[in-house]
Amino acid sequence: MVRPTRHPVSRIAQRKGGLSSADRLVPEETPVAFSYGGTTQAVMMATPADIEDFAVGFSLSEGIIAKASDIEAIAVEDHDQGVDIQITLAETERDALTARRRYMAGPVGCGLCGVESIEQALKPVASVGPAGLHLTAGDIAQSVRLLSARQPLHAETGAVHAAGFYVPGKGVAAAREDVGRHNALDKLAGALARAGVDGRSGAVVLTSRVSIEMVQKTAIIGAPVLIAVSAPTALAIRTAEAAGITLVALVRGDEFDIFTHADRIKTGADAHVA
Amino acid sequence: MVRPTRHPVSRIAQRKGGLSSADRLVPEETPVAFSYGGTTQAVMMATPADIEDFAVGFSLSEGIIAKASDIEAIAVEDHDQGVDIQITLAETERDALTARRRYMAGPVGCGLCGVESIEQALKPVASVGPAGLHLTAGDIAQSVRLLSARQPLHAETGAVHAAGFYVPGKGVAAAREDVGRHNALDKLAGALARAGVDGRSGAVVLTSRVSIEMVQKTAIIGAPVLIAVSAPTALAIRTAEAAGITLVALVRGDEFDIFTHADRIKTGADAHVA
Repeated sequence: MVRPTRHPVSRIAQRKGGLSSADRLVPEETPVAFSYGGTTQAVMMATPADIEDFAVGFSLSEGIIAKASDIEAIAVEDHDQGVDIQITLAETERDALTARRRYMAGPVGCGLCGVESIEQALKPVASVGPAGLHLTAGDIAQSVRLLSARQPLHAETGAVHAAGFYVPGKGVAAAREDVGRHNALDKLAGALARAGVDGRSGAVVLTSRVSIEMVQKTAIIGAPVLIAVSAPTALAIRTAEAAGITLVALVRGDEFDIFTHADRIKTGADAHVA
Repeated sequence: MVRPTRHPVSRIAQRKGGLSSADRLVPEETPVAFSYGGTTQAVMMATPADIEDFAVGFSLSEGIIAKASDIEAIAVEDHDQGVDIQITLAETERDALTARRRYMAGPVGCGLCGVESIEQALKPVASVGPAGLHLTAGDIAQSVRLLSARQPLHAETGAVHAAGFYVPGKGVAAAREDVGRHNALDKLAGALARAGVDGRSGAVVLTSRVSIEMVQKTAIIGAPVLIAVSAPTALAIRTAEAAGITLVALVRGDEFDIFTHADRIKTGADAHVA
């Protein structure tokens, strides 16, 4: 990918001293199409970087594949106006997607389909189980601090989100940025899967708020802990509770709130050992 | 709608003084299905409030209707797990949506469809034209200040976005909140259309960042000015430029940046008259 992830733009700044004209870096945003077997499944507006990670992570999040090796080939086609990712699935996954598409294209005018669609949006996530991961209060603060140091695009533009994977004692194993917080997490999921990292070994760390999809994606990664700088929704909290995920949010320096499964966080005397 | 928009949740707070357990209000997030003629078009995760505005605004944004009266009836069905909005379109719009669905369900495995989908995501927006609206620097600051006072859910939870419509000399004519910034703007669009407010008479004001969709929705509202607290993407700037929209962003008190069509903003001597 040689497509730039940010652009200098000229703007007129109104400041105390008056008006001035100057350049500023803003993040690029590009339509990214996901095509399977030549048929487009979705288009996301995203930062044009880490496209292969995005292809794998999106396919995992959408349940199209279960592991990175279910994809046989990824061809990134750079068009004038956007990026088309042509994904070739292994045969079993190809057949499953064809069957799923046939089902989706069928008649759904039953009047009940709103309910079906609602249930689909809330589909139960696999529980992460009683994973052995434990974090100290010091880990929480450090995970967010270390993620900050892995956000080069945000450092330049001040306007993109990041998702990282924090492993106690090892630091941030991977981090990905995107104008969209969902995309950043999908890219992280893809990067971890491609590198063969066991999601149960660490915590997902987000610069953003936590909506239900962020919990669903964390569950698919298999991470037992989700740490976020901003607030969760009530539905995200219920989903994390049900999935056995420890949800820590509103991290500000050494302060934070634990919303679910607090037993994985060691606080008190050992709070600052990390 | 009697569904609550926020919930008290218990959480463990790690503070300088140590651990404490206490309640905190977090925003609710609910699947909202949009069903036309008994067939579901989309499900959005949203704040369960202002549902009729959302129905009208989403239908406008998606190009399913051109005006509020193109909808014959809206029935809001409150289910256990979410909200289903059953929308009955007027006959012309109903036929157009049926034709569109038939097209979408057709075979698209041509290998070029990624490009078609990309073009669809970037579909040109109607220019707002040389609208007569002009704002002072004081208007910019005041629009954001006044919107802050119209965010009761954010005041309670600190975790939701808002979109408002600012009319110079009149203040904020309407404001809507949502956990999703796109939803907040769709709800605002619906509220304006239902009230018969001419979108050309004011500015859209957002608490969020500006991605391309926010500019596309502003163009559909017809507002000549878009004011946002946070940063725009490069694609949002290009889209605003092409649509003739004045894009003002990064508003912090009396300071802000003008990215496009600066001629509508009167700065300098008259900067603080509002």
